[in-house]
Amino acid sequence: MNHSTFRAHNFGAGPAALPEAVLKKAQAELLNWRSSGMSILEVGHRSPEFIEHIANHAEQSLRRLLDIPNNYEVLFLAGGGQSQFGMVPLNLLARDPNKRADYINSGIWSEKAILEAKRYGDIHIACDCHPNQLTTIPKQSGWKIRKNSAYLHYTDNETIGGLQFPFIPETDLPLVSDMTSSLLSRPLTVSRFGIIYAGAQKNISAAGLCIVIIRRDLVGHALPFTPTLWNYQTQCDAKSLFNTPPIFPWYLASLVFDWIHEQGGLTVMEKRNQEKAARLYQVIDESKGFYRNPIAAEARSMMNIPFSLPTAALEQDFLEAAKSQNLVNLKGHKLLGGIRASLYNAVTLTSVETLANFMLEFADTHQKHL
Amino acid sequence: MNHSTFRAHNFGAGPAALPEAVLKKAQAELLNWRSSGMSILEVGHRSPEFIEHIANHAEQSLRRLLDIPNNYEVLFLAGGGQSQFGMVPLNLLARDPNKRADYINSGIWSEKAILEAKRYGDIHIACDCHPNQLTTIPKQSGWKIRKNSAYLHYTDNETIGGLQFPFIPETDLPLVSDMTSSLLSRPLTVSRFGIIYAGAQKNISAAGLCIVIIRRDLVGHALPFTPTLWNYQTQCDAKSLFNTPPIFPWYLASLVFDWIHEQGGLTVMEKRNQEKAARLYQVIDESKGFYRNPIAAEARSMMNIPFSLPTAALEQDFLEAAKSQNLVNLKGHKLLGGIRASLYNAVTLTSVETLANFMLEFADTHQKHL
Repeated sequence: MNHSTFRAHNFGAGPAALPEAVLKKAQAELLNWRSSGMSILEVGHRSPEFIEHIANHAEQSLRRLLDIPNNYEVLFLAGGGQSQFGMVPLNLLARDPNKRADYINSGIWSEKAILEAKRYGDIHIACDCHPNQLTTIPKQSGWKIRKNSAYLHYTDNETIGGLQFPFIPETDLPLVSDMTSSLLSRPLTVSRFGIIYAGAQKNISAAGLCIVIIRRDLVGHALPFTPTLWNYQTQCDAKSLFNTPPIFPWYLASLVFDWIHEQGGLTVMEKRNQEKAARLYQVIDESKGFYRNPIAAEARSMMNIPFSLPTAALEQDFLEAAKSQNLVNLKGHKLLGGIRASLYNAVTLTSVETLANFMLEFADTHQKHL
Repeated sequence: MNHSTFRAHNFGAGPAALPEAVLKKAQAELLNWRSSGMSILEVGHRSPEFIEHIANHAEQSLRRLLDIPNNYEVLFLAGGGQSQFGMVPLNLLARDPNKRADYINSGIWSEKAILEAKRYGDIHIACDCHPNQLTTIPKQSGWKIRKNSAYLHYTDNETIGGLQFPFIPETDLPLVSDMTSSLLSRPLTVSRFGIIYAGAQKNISAAGLCIVIIRRDLVGHALPFTPTLWNYQTQCDAKSLFNTPPIFPWYLASLVFDWIHEQGGLTVMEKRNQEKAARLYQVIDESKGFYRNPIAAEARSMMNIPFSLPTAALEQDFLEAAKSQNLVNLKGHKLLGGIRASLYNAVTLTSVETLANFMLEFADTHQKHL
């Protein structure tokens, strides 16, 4: 069987590119995992092999990557990041007798989280980025955080808008962060947070898994009608094995963690990611307005770079020409339109250089006709 | 790369054996799905390719396998079968102003479903199999179903106890069935049911996916605090694509459905499954009490065959000797002990014959020493 294969430059926002070395390892052992005579797809989640080589290994590996303190639990849950839009309020709101929580609104994903939380409690927007057209994160001195709310929630990186927090908010409240599209892109001080959560289909694994890093004192406050599977207490007590978990994405995550360690860890990831993002922003900024990204320099996303061209017709041409050069999944989110290049860990500098050169050439060809 | 591999005879209860042809196809295209230059693990769930070749194809393929009527929706949801222990009451109890529902208790999985439902409504046990030590399903004439309950729930096949309904209950209530370990093992008259649900990690796919087949009039009755993702209405409206779904298990399910069609459909599956189960029950019944399965003949599971040996020490010897002959995952569930052989669609007659011959030989060797 010949598995040498054509590979595209994949700039998808998620599900997204995975490291080729990880895919090749998964492929090689897909029918026979660790000489078990079984596929990882056929292995029981209560087997000693799964618990040692996947569940425990993945947790320890992630703890080392992020230097996670001992008073934090690490959960590997079914479903995407959006499950946490409900789980967070269901599990934390009862910490305040008035079920109050504060949120920062920095774009489409923040809003979805806010919408779900409002179904369960008294939600206050401590800072809204809409007055600045979602182009920057206002300084914290202007925010209005309520003193006794159960928690403060923010979306570290808005995957659609390309707006990223250039700082970690300061607060006495437990800080909850949706890091779906930024976790593992750089080192992080976990102790600053109450909860960090991330759908896996960006920098971590395939779709169907959500990672939750939670400070232990925040576990055990679920509202009475919280489904048992959605209670952090259930999942912590059972080490994420209360019921059959999403085994394959969990396995892939463990391979990705290994791969990041092999590459040199999160400091190396951050350096590469900064370099990749800087290259594309440079092309945009030096294009004399042919490519436009509206985000303030300090709040530009390192992972997702949305940009527009002078006309919708040109954007369509751009997408088609890019595809013909094997540069794919560059279409912007349907709610925003335009172009978007996502530059997760698995997107190589070579892919980014290829895209940058394509952009230069495309601008050069089309600018003169404007 | 050499992918010719050692394969075990896998009798695991789930996650369980998958058809080798399906695994090989998944392996062959793991780095390059449909000449896209991307792994299926890297493909977006909103791409036309995913929607056509996986989402729509899987649904149509399943509809043909089970002859699903047009007034039923088919959902592919994140999480295992156990998510439905909460979703069913959260979505159906409000159909009755008194939030009543009736359940049949036929073993461990029924009880878990009952326990979760009791958190949300007035749950009545219409029939309890415990008085007969979970060895048979009492005739329906003796059941006490309440007239105006929102629904009647039963577990078609108790995966741990090996107790299977030999009939579909008759009722005017919407009939809800947990078919996690029996769906696709045989043809089924879907129109008899209100909801059929099944975790995928048995006859359908890998872990992390749950299939729900729901009559359309049962959608839209969720209790007000139901999480948005757990509302059937949300999932029906979005065709299971409200948020990022478990793409890989969904993809594998579509390959498994194709495989079943190629094998001749569910009639062929049922014939093979009957033959496999009959072979093992024959060995048990002709062992002069060396192997014992307590279930009444008509209620014996076609999928999961638990049995015991004269002593726990012999059971341990049995498991070790079996493993040395490449017969694996035969240990009974921790709550029941003993041995269990699960015979899902992907378990071949050859595997079952190998196990049967091993059992005959093991009994022959050890019986004389008793």
